[in-house]
Amino acid sequence: MAITTSLCAHPNVTKYVNPFIGTGAALNSLSGNNYPGATVPFGMVQLSPDTREAPNWAQASGYDYNDSIIYGFSHTRLSGTGATDLIDILMLPVTELRRSSTFTHQEEEAEPGYYRVRLKDNDIIAELTTTTRTGVHRYTYPKDKPAMLYIDLDHSAIKGDWGRHIINSQLRVVDEYTIEGYRIITGWAKLRKIYFTMHFSAPITAWEVWNNGKHYTNTAVSNGTDVKGTFTFETHGEPLICHVALSPISIFNARENLRTEVGEKSFDQIRSEASEMWNRELIKIDITNGSLTEEELQIFYTALYHALLQPNTFSDVNGEFMAPDYSVGRTHEGHTQYTTFSLWDTYRAAHPLYTLIEPELTACFVNSMLTQYEYYGYLPIWQLWGQDNYCMIGNHAVPVIVDAVLKGLTTSTETGKGNSSAQMCYEAVRNSLTTSHLNAPFEVWDTYGYIPEDIQTQSVSLTLEMAYDDWCAAQLAYYVGAMEDYDFFAKRSTQYRSLFHPSQKFFQPKDSQGKWIEPFDLYKYGANGGHPFTEGNAWQYYWYVPHNVPDLIALTGGKEEFCRRLDEFFTSTQTSGEKNDNASGFVGLYAHGNEPSHHVAYLYALAGQPQKTQQLVHHIARTLYNTSSSGYAGNDDCGEMSAWYIFSALGFYPVNPVGGEYVLGTPLVNHAVVQLGKGEEFHVEVRRKNADHIYVKRVEWNGKHLKEPIIHHSELVKGGTLSFIMSDKPNGEILRINK
Amino acid sequence: MAITTSLCAHPNVTKYVNPFIGTGAALNSLSGNNYPGATVPFGMVQLSPDTREAPNWAQASGYDYNDSIIYGFSHTRLSGTGATDLIDILMLPVTELRRSSTFTHQEEEAEPGYYRVRLKDNDIIAELTTTTRTGVHRYTYPKDKPAMLYIDLDHSAIKGDWGRHIINSQLRVVDEYTIEGYRIITGWAKLRKIYFTMHFSAPITAWEVWNNGKHYTNTAVSNGTDVKGTFTFETHGEPLICHVALSPISIFNARENLRTEVGEKSFDQIRSEASEMWNRELIKIDITNGSLTEEELQIFYTALYHALLQPNTFSDVNGEFMAPDYSVGRTHEGHTQYTTFSLWDTYRAAHPLYTLIEPELTACFVNSMLTQYEYYGYLPIWQLWGQDNYCMIGNHAVPVIVDAVLKGLTTSTETGKGNSSAQMCYEAVRNSLTTSHLNAPFEVWDTYGYIPEDIQTQSVSLTLEMAYDDWCAAQLAYYVGAMEDYDFFAKRSTQYRSLFHPSQKFFQPKDSQGKWIEPFDLYKYGANGGHPFTEGNAWQYYWYVPHNVPDLIALTGGKEEFCRRLDEFFTSTQTSGEKNDNASGFVGLYAHGNEPSHHVAYLYALAGQPQKTQQLVHHIARTLYNTSSSGYAGNDDCGEMSAWYIFSALGFYPVNPVGGEYVLGTPLVNHAVVQLGKGEEFHVEVRRKNADHIYVKRVEWNGKHLKEPIIHHSELVKGGTLSFIMSDKPNGEILRINK
Repeated sequence: MAITTSLCAHPNVTKYVNPFIGTGAALNSLSGNNYPGATVPFGMVQLSPDTREAPNWAQASGYDYNDSIIYGFSHTRLSGTGATDLIDILMLPVTELRRSSTFTHQEEEAEPGYYRVRLKDNDIIAELTTTTRTGVHRYTYPKDKPAMLYIDLDHSAIKGDWGRHIINSQLRVVDEYTIEGYRIITGWAKLRKIYFTMHFSAPITAWEVWNNGKHYTNTAVSNGTDVKGTFTFETHGEPLICHVALSPISIFNARENLRTEVGEKSFDQIRSEASEMWNRELIKIDITNGSLTEEELQIFYTALYHALLQPNTFSDVNGEFMAPDYSVGRTHEGHTQYTTFSLWDTYRAAHPLYTLIEPELTACFVNSMLTQYEYYGYLPIWQLWGQDNYCMIGNHAVPVIVDAVLKGLTTSTETGKGNSSAQMCYEAVRNSLTTSHLNAPFEVWDTYGYIPEDIQTQSVSLTLEMAYDDWCAAQLAYYVGAMEDYDFFAKRSTQYRSLFHPSQKFFQPKDSQGKWIEPFDLYKYGANGGHPFTEGNAWQYYWYVPHNVPDLIALTGGKEEFCRRLDEFFTSTQTSGEKNDNASGFVGLYAHGNEPSHHVAYLYALAGQPQKTQQLVHHIARTLYNTSSSGYAGNDDCGEMSAWYIFSALGFYPVNPVGGEYVLGTPLVNHAVVQLGKGEEFHVEVRRKNADHIYVKRVEWNGKHLKEPIIHHSELVKGGTLSFIMSDKPNGEILRINK
Repeated sequence: MAITTSLCAHPNVTKYVNPFIGTGAALNSLSGNNYPGATVPFGMVQLSPDTREAPNWAQASGYDYNDSIIYGFSHTRLSGTGATDLIDILMLPVTELRRSSTFTHQEEEAEPGYYRVRLKDNDIIAELTTTTRTGVHRYTYPKDKPAMLYIDLDHSAIKGDWGRHIINSQLRVVDEYTIEGYRIITGWAKLRKIYFTMHFSAPITAWEVWNNGKHYTNTAVSNGTDVKGTFTFETHGEPLICHVALSPISIFNARENLRTEVGEKSFDQIRSEASEMWNRELIKIDITNGSLTEEELQIFYTALYHALLQPNTFSDVNGEFMAPDYSVGRTHEGHTQYTTFSLWDTYRAAHPLYTLIEPELTACFVNSMLTQYEYYGYLPIWQLWGQDNYCMIGNHAVPVIVDAVLKGLTTSTETGKGNSSAQMCYEAVRNSLTTSHLNAPFEVWDTYGYIPEDIQTQSVSLTLEMAYDDWCAAQLAYYVGAMEDYDFFAKRSTQYRSLFHPSQKFFQPKDSQGKWIEPFDLYKYGANGGHPFTEGNAWQYYWYVPHNVPDLIALTGGKEEFCRRLDEFFTSTQTSGEKNDNASGFVGLYAHGNEPSHHVAYLYALAGQPQKTQQLVHHIARTLYNTSSSGYAGNDDCGEMSAWYIFSALGFYPVNPVGGEYVLGTPLVNHAVVQLGKGEEFHVEVRRKNADHIYVKRVEWNGKHLKEPIIHHSELVKGGTLSFIMSDKPNGEILRINK
């Protein structure tokens, strides 16, 4: 059938993306903190409506689906984070002097690379699309009203947080079709410089500017820390098209970005190209041939869309980017520099996902992190706008880089991108794990063999996560033949045992005298300091030995006891009576809304009770993801929550994110074709008689029965078919899950 | 006589410079706010002792002669300013963990390009010298003690003022002979990036670092906002030599600055070259052949030295500098970019002085200010580290640039430096005086014809100074043939008249209704806002019509009445009972310690009573300048107080700083040879029978009697001899000056 062939070749899956998913919380839930606006995969520009005058934690992306006022459209933002920054260069079309408009979701639509809304108060249709570095606006004004545009260089995430304030900014009318300028701001990222050039399809005829409390008329240039202006255009009834190119380096570069990416292209052409860019990425996992519901397709493709929003392009078309020491860096010919590495989140599933479907970009991501190493002396903890904000714990660039090397993704790809030698990577990894720095106390780690809570808070979480990073380093040391280093890191990787309380059988805090800190409340949550656990409690962190699950099972007392404790974890209703802001999406004590829990449902499979993994994965996927604005159980965290869904939907998950051992769960898809780059692909085929057949009877790889609940990355990338034979009967007892 | 010939050819005048002059206040006086440390003419580096942990207004240069503790030697600072900034990259040699040392002036010495002190507590001799961009330290430790060095990247002017705080910094041990890093700081200059490379003559053997409250041992790199470290060197009893090169752009550039400027040169060689650089500049005014006292020579050459400390080099040896929009700027081949333009102070006498003895640098200064125009849309008000801090009032880059063009200094100099066409200069001037911006309210100026106090404070001072800048613009408009603009600016230049109170006969404030604000206290001081006058009162600002003294005389009621009022000004003891921090060095109501008074003593000469000019200039020069640490009557203000002295000592002063009309006073020198560049020179010859012959009987230019009390720049630069025939008898009545 011709139509089927056509769909197989290039099905359009962008239509399944619903950018409003995750954009607003329901009562008493956490928002995904996603945004609905226009962007391209891994773009520098995220052009999206701002519904807050000064967004804060709960509206980190600048938008909340529960709001009804739009303050404008600014050009940069993060997707899914808990903390907020960026939110640069706001524009709002108006027909009078005003700084906001009401809107309704009935008059709002969004798709990958395109956003549209009617601004009710002045009856203006605003449409947005983008290239990688340029935001493109089309504003259709009522015919009988002035076409005006409010531009606000002061609009940002809330001032004061992280010492956020504008250092300087400029708004300059270069000629009647062009406005240029910049803003310099300190905040979560300690220093950001955002240069812009704006080109308009109609001439500016008059304008007013407000600057440091003063009002100016038609002044050519304004420099200051709170510059805003309203510009009037002579549109002759035509829509006003605005091209706004950004650069982290200079106005000159912004102009070059504009010239290169936009040139003479129309709004519709750019919109169409953005859509094509998205489809090329999204179709890398084609699940359209599997009789899924519209809702299932929407959840899946929106998750994939969210996972591919970042890391973000950080170099200009000429290859210049802001180096981590705030000087000008230059990429090697043809390379792109990326930033936005929310690694405590994304090393778990987002980066492993990129190793499957974005192998060449993975090389660029590694290169970009190595740039930070080169300038800082250590790899990123949380890299934002090219610099570290040291947010969260661990050194989880290490697993990302080690995984990329072990999977062969960092050298000699076809386009020559990447090409970081294993030795270079290893040097960065080794020095990052031996050079003490903020939130990475290796002197303490080496001296005590664990982190004492009285010396460094979040000590148990740190001990567990540092041990894991050490294990990763050991693997790479082994790979490059540094056997003494291997021994050093392998030994450190076992240091989690120092905090295993022999009678309590939990990981618990010690002080620097080696004494247990007791009594200790296993249910009490820590946030980001002042408690031994990070955004979690002793129960949630109990499962964090991803590099040696057999040892954790042994410490617990064997597989049976391990599964019994898992059962308690997923069914207990006990709490310490405290609420923690980062924990949500509960299944018992399991909190799917935050990352420390993410691998735990898969541990049953490694302890001989895969049916409970299948039950729970299915339960989590079906009850904690939906197509509403509160479609995530917690912050999406730069696509990590989404990446859990993608992997789980395909039937496997990287419990240990390094090395390519995926633990089998239960596929949600019925059929999938996964493109691996270089023309390779593998298929997931699910033989399921009925949608409620969620249990796995048998799994085959290229027809061969998989006896262990594991499939290796190295097998998948050879190409082939992963077949699941499903049943409605679990292979053993299952849980009674509390609703 | 051979020795005389030799002295005439190359006399050494650096020995007359006493860098301690102006470095500390006496009780109830203002400090010159100078510093004693090492620097070269117009250098980027000012390497000098810091006697304050966090200097503030009263110790703006970081040093106070009244102090007895040195905290270290940092590499940048301002000379003579009231507000403070810079003070970057502090180093202190120690033999143990300590962060300061006592010292005494008995064990301290300084000369141009060299400073030496014994740090008592650890018995260390510290010697400092510099190239343009590199600080060079030589530390001689006691033989039996460890050779250690404390480095503090957090040391700065006081935090909090102007929102000052460190944004980020790095200290990295690159190898055992090299430390590199940077600091990014916001303060009076909104954003400064200071990159450095340090090279040591002995290897580092161990070190400790403090960073964000944590202590680290031998950690290779530290990134943070309060990074400090103590390093131990293996010196084998030799002095430790440290080369510290700076760059506002990158570590790469700092290395290139070091390589180019220092190379293999020894400390003594660099010291000797610095001394030669100074002598080449200072000898441009040779007064050594005039039987002056050692004290007179010291005052004069130290003043000249202070005048030539700035503007400061701001481009690296490769021509890169931080552009005013914080991107990377590049000078034209062979050019140097300069910054530190304290224009409200320096347009009066310092810049006119540069037009005489630094004609080529004047072209570079103009170019550097035009760079700000290019990026900001207007010329600097107060340019610090390449950006505007908008300090003080007026747009006095305008007089500096107009003067340079009118004197023919901006185009086609021999080396090709400068080359800003009059047309380019005029465009910058015109747009700077028509584009409203912070502290420059041209919309108000044009609407009201004066500045109303209820709209913009400091309104009378603003009205007077803006009128002057307009007059300057009119001259340049005329020069380039823009006759309509000439009319526009010429008309605005008379707007001071709007605030001349017809019955009070003072310049007084009006509100926006055009009503006089009355009653008004003529003696009450304003500071920098909240009052119609800026760092002065109605009496001191009365004299501010430098572009039309005849009109001011006419407004006052004729020459006699004008002189009568001058008499009252210089003899009155009346006050409003308030103390003003910026006013000091009183002669009656005249306050030589601050700039608004500086030209006033010369006004008598223009009103027919030159003997009082002579009397007062002599009085001011002899009583308000001396060779002590409190040798200035107020802040030297980037050499402005010094430049007054240089001009006055030569016998003339630029009452109107633009156009080259110098008003004759009374020479303090007996003989001077002034080099004008290109091998030209003019002489001042004074025929004086006795030192107390301070009155001028007759002045001749190349033998021709000057009937008016004026000598033109255009005459002086042709070369020749200005002869003063002196007498002990004034040409009329003189004042009874209150002591």
